[in-house]
Amino acid sequence: MSENDWHETKIRVRYKDTDRMGVVYYGNYLTYFEIGRAELMRDLGFPYSAFESDGYSLVVTEANAKYHSNVGYDTLVTVRTKIIDLRLVRVSFKYEIVDEQYGLLVSGYTVHACINSNSKPMRIPPELRKIMEENLLCAGFYE
Amino acid sequence: MSENDWHETKIRVRYKDTDRMGVVYYGNYLTYFEIGRAELMRDLGFPYSAFESDGYSLVVTEANAKYHSNVGYDTLVTVRTKIIDLRLVRVSFKYEIVDEQYGLLVSGYTVHACINSNSKPMRIPPELRKIMEENLLCAGFYE
Amino acid sequence: MSENDWHETKIRVRYKDTDRMGVVYYGNYLTYFEIGRAELMRDLGFPYSAFESDGYSLVVTEANAKYHSNVGYDTLVTVRTKIIDLRLVRVSFKYEIVDEQYGLLVSGYTVHACINSNSKPMRIPPELRKIMEENLLCAGFYE
Amino acid sequence: MSENDWHETKIRVRYKDTDRMGVVYYGNYLTYFEIGRAELMRDLGFPYSAFESDGYSLVVTEANAKYHSNVGYDTLVTVRTKIIDLRLVRVSFKYEIVDEQYGLLVSGYTVHACINSNSKPMRIPPELRKIMEENLLCAGFYE
Repeated sequence: MSENDWHETKIRVRYKDTDRMGVVYYGNYLTYFEIGRAELMRDLGFPYSAFESDGYSLVVTEANAKYHSNVGYDTLVTVRTKIIDLRLVRVSFKYEIVDEQYGLLVSGYTVHACINSNSKPMRIPPELRKIMEENLLCAGFYE
Repeated sequence: MSENDWHETKIRVRYKDTDRMGVVYYGNYLTYFEIGRAELMRDLGFPYSAFESDGYSLVVTEANAKYHSNVGYDTLVTVRTKIIDLRLVRVSFKYEIVDEQYGLLVSGYTVHACINSNSKPMRIPPELRKIMEENLLCAGFYE
Repeated sequence: MSENDWHETKIRVRYKDTDRMGVVYYGNYLTYFEIGRAELMRDLGFPYSAFESDGYSLVVTEANAKYHSNVGYDTLVTVRTKIIDLRLVRVSFKYEIVDEQYGLLVSGYTVHACINSNSKPMRIPPELRKIMEENLLCAGFYE
Repeated sequence: MSENDWHETKIRVRYKDTDRMGVVYYGNYLTYFEIGRAELMRDLGFPYSAFESDGYSLVVTEANAKYHSNVGYDTLVTVRTKIIDLRLVRVSFKYEIVDEQYGLLVSGYTVHACINSNSKPMRIPPELRKIMEENLLCAGFYE
């Protein structure tokens, strides 16, 4: 699969993101995942903020991160994101955080369930499902 | 004024709280302030969580911190908190964060305005005002 | 296995830990995991801060969290931690974060590699290995 | 003084930055200040990361924030930063965080002391002092 199948967004490591080891604190990579999927959804035409304004949320049911290398303050890392699974209620994102110099830093995935404002599981709305399916097709998962 | 006029609570520095300098990130002391005033309110019989459940909030209108020294991971610091001003709508807290070995680390204050669930300024509810006034009297501010 | 095989520590949810959903932000549970394993190591007689002072670190190579339920500000949650795997260089911890009212909130694990101050993989020091093995035996993994 | 005397940088509010009030947690604005001064220094030709690589740090000795309004998730705020005071060892930055819709959100300042790698106070290096002085002159403070 070509590199183009990933959505990419850049994040500069904040001083706040580092810990006493001089590198990004492991839990903060889940914030970078958040930014990756938010920017992917924005590019799909469904900003997550608008999605929540419509009364929906994609609550996280699982998160996984494998740490390969790490970087320090002021590094400009790239978060690569794609949708890897789409069910009636659930959607899964995969992430790779890479650095020009150190290569792959962190890989991982998150699984989300769609809920409404009463915290009840909901089918992913058809407009969003359609665009997510197209994105999955582009990424070659349904071929 | 005796040391006893301060409410005291202990916080252990988390790895997450440190930055690449090996000490607590400056913005995280505002979280320690938050814990100081939350525990003071709990001891006054008005847990902040219950206060919010009643439809009120004490939004921060100003925060100030002076940094005298700093400590690293796993240090057990003490947050000393007291009420230093009480108006119809506003209340101010003063803080000292101290360490057994290094003495005074951070001193500061926060100013808060009471608002209701529609974000409108509200008089501080009389039950809370009464207990806060007594606390101020104990601390010798109105004498 | 009895409940007693877990090390337990209490954490009160900070306002800072919550997000706009009114509950703990998913990445912050990795901070709670950090506190769980730090307190376990302290109780084993090997505070992680002393371990690092000796020139070692346990860098995270993988983290996993499954989110079952969630809680909001001021909740006093319990982090249950135990060692579930011990290799020459690696050690794995398992976690359960539970709430009296809502039961199991988050379960997960982290895998760590021991490195020295030059970031080279190191065998876990024998004194620590010995005490970790005993802890594993208590938990019934090697039986 | 014209608006152009401020350095400006954009920050998008992360989900992680919000709290249960649905807006940015008050302590997180100090992280936004950090980004403001880091980007100002980068534009002056002295990235803070390079400054630290040279063995210097600008430790914070005071931070102040006044909160005028607040915004929620996904808002694209602007951090306006300028140098407002320059001494032998100390430098002060002033900040305004503004939003297109809500106007001024937070104003504040930070005071920093230059130290070397042994935590000893140091004169600000002449190359940096020179460029900071020029920036101050541009901002009209020394006229």
